[in-house]
Amino acid sequence: MTTKTPRIAHLGIAVRDLDAAVAFYRDVLGMPAGARETVGDQGVEVAFVHAGEPEIELLHPTRPDSPVGRFLDRRGEGLHHVCLEVTDIRAELARLSALGVPLVDREPRIGAGGHLVAFLHPKGARGVLIELEQKRSE
Amino acid sequence: MTTKTPRIAHLGIAVRDLDAAVAFYRDVLGMPAGARETVGDQGVEVAFVHAGEPEIELLHPTRPDSPVGRFLDRRGEGLHHVCLEVTDIRAELARLSALGVPLVDREPRIGAGGHLVAFLHPKGARGVLIELEQKRSE
Repeated sequence: MTTKTPRIAHLGIAVRDLDAAVAFYRDVLGMPAGARETVGDQGVEVAFVHAGEPEIELLHPTRPDSPVGRFLDRRGEGLHHVCLEVTDIRAELARLSALGVPLVDREPRIGAGGHLVAFLHPKGARGVLIELEQKRSE
Repeated sequence: MTTKTPRIAHLGIAVRDLDAAVAFYRDVLGMPAGARETVGDQGVEVAFVHAGEPEIELLHPTRPDSPVGRFLDRRGEGLHHVCLEVTDIRAELARLSALGVPLVDREPRIGAGGHLVAFLHPKGARGVLIELEQKRSE
């Protein structure tokens, strides 16, 4: 985000039934289904559906005490986070930390697709859970 | 959505303080600020910030009993809706209605930017408020 305008990489949506959710976006809205994987560290199974430039990431908990499981208990199914692609995630976290932006992750970790990811805290982002992602290939 | 893969046109975020929210996305996250307008019909003032292909639309109620005002009372600030661009909004509403998808708007109305818009009901979209938009220029 320091060297170019940040772009939305994907939009995360928490769901209780992953197959039914993929079917809705694929069969009702006409979006091609993409990769599906389990991110054990986060206790979540994710499925991507293509929606133009950003993808929609459907998130389903693999255990009730995971972040997405707690989100579903608290708020029900719905929009969960927005993911911004960055070129240097460590530099970006340092820049945001220096600005006083509250971070969930001070160090990046491995997320879906093997990319480096880190979350900003919603309390510092007007109620939105923002994920930063540095593509593995970069 | 019938003739090509639908794309996310923007992501709507409900906020209590529009100036502070624009400042966060512009000054902290580095996204250029765009158009700002009041949509009287919906009781909302909106400001766009550019985030790659889709824009982020910040939404601030102009009266407490508006849809966004009620959303803020119920859930607080945060992700509000996702907007999909379509080429023929009336044909799309007819197609979705025939599939039994619950609609908030059976007929399109004029939204931000003068585009034709209509909302699907979250109860038919796994908890997500989905907006359809047909660009005015089309």
